[in-house]
Amino acid sequence: MIGAEALVRSLVASGVDVVFANPVTSEMHFVATLDAVPEMRGVLALFEGAATGAADGYARMRDRPAAVLLHLGPGLGNGLANLHNARRARAPVVAIVGDHATYHKQFDAPLESDIDTVARNVSTWIRRSVRAEDAGADAAAAVAAACGPPGQVATLILPADVSWSEGGLVAPPVQRTPRATVRAETLDEVAAALRSREKTALLLGGRALREPAVQAAYRIARATGAEVLAETFPARAERGAGIPVVQRLAYLAEMAAGQLDGLRHLILVDTKSPVSFFAYPGKPSDLVPDGCDVSVLAGGGDDAVAALESLAAELGGEPQSAVPDTPRPEKPSGELSAESIARAIGALLPEGAIVSDEANTSGTFLPAFTAGAPRHDWLSLTGGSIGQGLPVALGAAVACPDRPVLALEADGSALYTLQSLWSMAREQLDVTTVIFSNRRYAILRMELARVGATASGERALEMLDISPPEIDFVALARGFGVPATRPESAEGFATDLQRAFAEPGPHLIEAVIPSLF
Amino acid sequence: MIGAEALVRSLVASGVDVVFANPVTSEMHFVATLDAVPEMRGVLALFEGAATGAADGYARMRDRPAAVLLHLGPGLGNGLANLHNARRARAPVVAIVGDHATYHKQFDAPLESDIDTVARNVSTWIRRSVRAEDAGADAAAAVAAACGPPGQVATLILPADVSWSEGGLVAPPVQRTPRATVRAETLDEVAAALRSREKTALLLGGRALREPAVQAAYRIARATGAEVLAETFPARAERGAGIPVVQRLAYLAEMAAGQLDGLRHLILVDTKSPVSFFAYPGKPSDLVPDGCDVSVLAGGGDDAVAALESLAAELGGEPQSAVPDTPRPEKPSGELSAESIARAIGALLPEGAIVSDEANTSGTFLPAFTAGAPRHDWLSLTGGSIGQGLPVALGAAVACPDRPVLALEADGSALYTLQSLWSMAREQLDVTTVIFSNRRYAILRMELARVGATASGERALEMLDISPPEIDFVALARGFGVPATRPESAEGFATDLQRAFAEPGPHLIEAVIPSLF
Repeated sequence: MIGAEALVRSLVASGVDVVFANPVTSEMHFVATLDAVPEMRGVLALFEGAATGAADGYARMRDRPAAVLLHLGPGLGNGLANLHNARRARAPVVAIVGDHATYHKQFDAPLESDIDTVARNVSTWIRRSVRAEDAGADAAAAVAAACGPPGQVATLILPADVSWSEGGLVAPPVQRTPRATVRAETLDEVAAALRSREKTALLLGGRALREPAVQAAYRIARATGAEVLAETFPARAERGAGIPVVQRLAYLAEMAAGQLDGLRHLILVDTKSPVSFFAYPGKPSDLVPDGCDVSVLAGGGDDAVAALESLAAELGGEPQSAVPDTPRPEKPSGELSAESIARAIGALLPEGAIVSDEANTSGTFLPAFTAGAPRHDWLSLTGGSIGQGLPVALGAAVACPDRPVLALEADGSALYTLQSLWSMAREQLDVTTVIFSNRRYAILRMELARVGATASGERALEMLDISPPEIDFVALARGFGVPATRPESAEGFATDLQRAFAEPGPHLIEAVIPSLF
Repeated sequence: MIGAEALVRSLVASGVDVVFANPVTSEMHFVATLDAVPEMRGVLALFEGAATGAADGYARMRDRPAAVLLHLGPGLGNGLANLHNARRARAPVVAIVGDHATYHKQFDAPLESDIDTVARNVSTWIRRSVRAEDAGADAAAAVAAACGPPGQVATLILPADVSWSEGGLVAPPVQRTPRATVRAETLDEVAAALRSREKTALLLGGRALREPAVQAAYRIARATGAEVLAETFPARAERGAGIPVVQRLAYLAEMAAGQLDGLRHLILVDTKSPVSFFAYPGKPSDLVPDGCDVSVLAGGGDDAVAALESLAAELGGEPQSAVPDTPRPEKPSGELSAESIARAIGALLPEGAIVSDEANTSGTFLPAFTAGAPRHDWLSLTGGSIGQGLPVALGAAVACPDRPVLALEADGSALYTLQSLWSMAREQLDVTTVIFSNRRYAILRMELARVGATASGERALEMLDISPPEIDFVALARGFGVPATRPESAEGFATDLQRAFAEPGPHLIEAVIPSLF
């Protein structure tokens, strides 16, 4: 058995049976193996950024890794931004980077470059297979490393001759490491803070935004008067009917500081202490108010759900009190705007939807109007590197073929990895994409003032506008094989959205709206 | 003066007056400075890969750097593949990577990552500005490093607070280092090989593919019987009427080995010793035949033109013998194919054209049919990382606004950085793009067999096809604001090409052709 086949069979044995791929010459043996190992599904992408983001979206929904197949240093570079986002999501991803044959590297051929240094940006686990005999075991080790907990991007560098040489051995399935139980002392410390009756908040992130954790957090809140907040950009939050509404910490540091004002205790549950997204002249980076103690209930490798449930039991939170209903908005009428779109989505979001949210400034109204929708998952831009939303939607749709996926995309962000639309069409995935087309990098207009670049004139503002020429997303979508519409009113948008949800396969709706900034 | 303004003014003082940019928050002060320093032209890109490739194309045509403005580690990642190609082109590029404020990095905000490790993949010169007072001098040092010779990618990391703080100082203009004169001993050794009457070839690359060097090489060839060859993927070759035709070393190692067979002396002029692009089982990586001595006449920092001219004078090559005319093909008729397209281009290429060639397998017929065209420059995919052609065309058009630019694009490659079309439309650049739409990664079909992955079946081949769904490049181009056509015959193609050359602004022609593989 050649190394590539041992590697693919080892991945499958450990539960990794999807590979998002942009293969090139050095990966041909991996590709050729797909016929011998039909359990492995190959999903082709036209650009590595689509493939890596898809692996992230897949992992967030399945809680297990997909593989992503990349070509040498430049291919890893193309996929790096969405691996960065995956790293911030703590999503398990196995990145396999094809390299030149071991003996060929000395010749410094055109595609030769230092892959390891690039990988270091996103991976603490990096291994280079050196013999076909090791390829299977290395693949299994990569899966184990990716799974953690917490999840991470594990990078396995695979030389072409390791792929094509005989001697490959299939590795046994990887045993998943369970999450660690939070120590009793930690629970006691946190319980004391919660009992103090001083102003206290639980800040939930990561796994603590799945339903059981949110329910337990609200039992604690009811018993103690603590507030419950969510991190600003959750990898995956379970929301909707029957699940208590968790306010997210605002992106704008000024607003987040208001949410945290007066706190004496901040309890972190699978998240980090809140900091400003960027630095701004004269404003603090650390958002924790003076005099507030920060304690960690559960880190990324800990069992946050069990910790919250045990706290809830101890603090006497009522186990089964009903969650008050949050009303859904009516279908909107009138002008198409960020607000009327959010109303339409809130009114029409189907049961079990997966929302990939990269609406940026245009998404301001979404959390409130979707809180009363049927149960759904909300996936955010975790690492701040735009171009994540469409690939994550692609991967989520591959992970959950029976669930409708809604990608909410700012126009500027969508253009980073628009090639994802083609993979959605190729795989006939049930993804509805809404483009919030305000024709500018609206967030940068806002940021220009926030960083104090107030003297800026026309030439600076031009660099923040993506018009002229106006981008025609309907044409772009059709070019990639995705049917698309451009409604001109809120009613028209609602009609198109309803149709897109009802029909199988991908759809795109371009909503031309005024910018909020 | 704030650091950002000192930096921009220092770039301008040293001759860097174009910046290709994808700015985000940490670069807002740089952007705001564009109004204060109108000498700096900002060209907006929708994706960093378009910006970095454009800086490469600009540098190849102007022999001086443009700046490219990138956003933190992920932005550098997005631009990395085309910086890799620029590195292989030895193009001078100043990459400015905005970073978080110095004091903000400790908080590990979502966009925080290790920028330096990523930069190391493409840059040996990496500097981080730490005070506003240094920003101007650091910018000048980056320009000096980028210029070399040889040219390189210099990476300057610019923290947001260094940008926005007062105290900036404008650096004096950088003095360019001249290329080194080749030593007399080296000239003597090479002259001896050329006089040996044993089979000898000059392999030209880099600056040695500009006209004066090619003319001198041919005088040497006439005087000594030596062959003249060009490296496989030149950054910029001057070609066409009046310039001797130089055969390029073939991409396929098997064919290149045939071109080099029987050589006793191989003389490298601003290029590297030839190696196989990839490794293939059982085939040599080093293409130099046994018993052939390799000598270096000029390296990347040397004055290759003077060295060749001095050798030509010494060896008695006739200085002014006429170059024989190479015939131009007739305009083609009949079926649209890689061959008929090459004929049309050969027949119609305008005087002074700049050709950015990423046609890959579909480009097989281009060198022969364009050899007799009026003078033009030919820019190749230097580093093997696809997605270079459109950005390089964009940059070349910014560099040379009075010259027509022709981008020849394989469909699969074009899709990596298609956003470049929008920047062409925005800047109304005179770029004609031809898409060779064979709807597959044809080169990979060929490579699958070459690497010995012969057992591959249907599922493997599907991973090399970019259809279904069929990509509609006419729709995609229009979506980005570029008028486009899809002719159905060779005559129609020639008509559309002629019109595109005649009209100002960008055009795209999608040529649906049978694949050669």
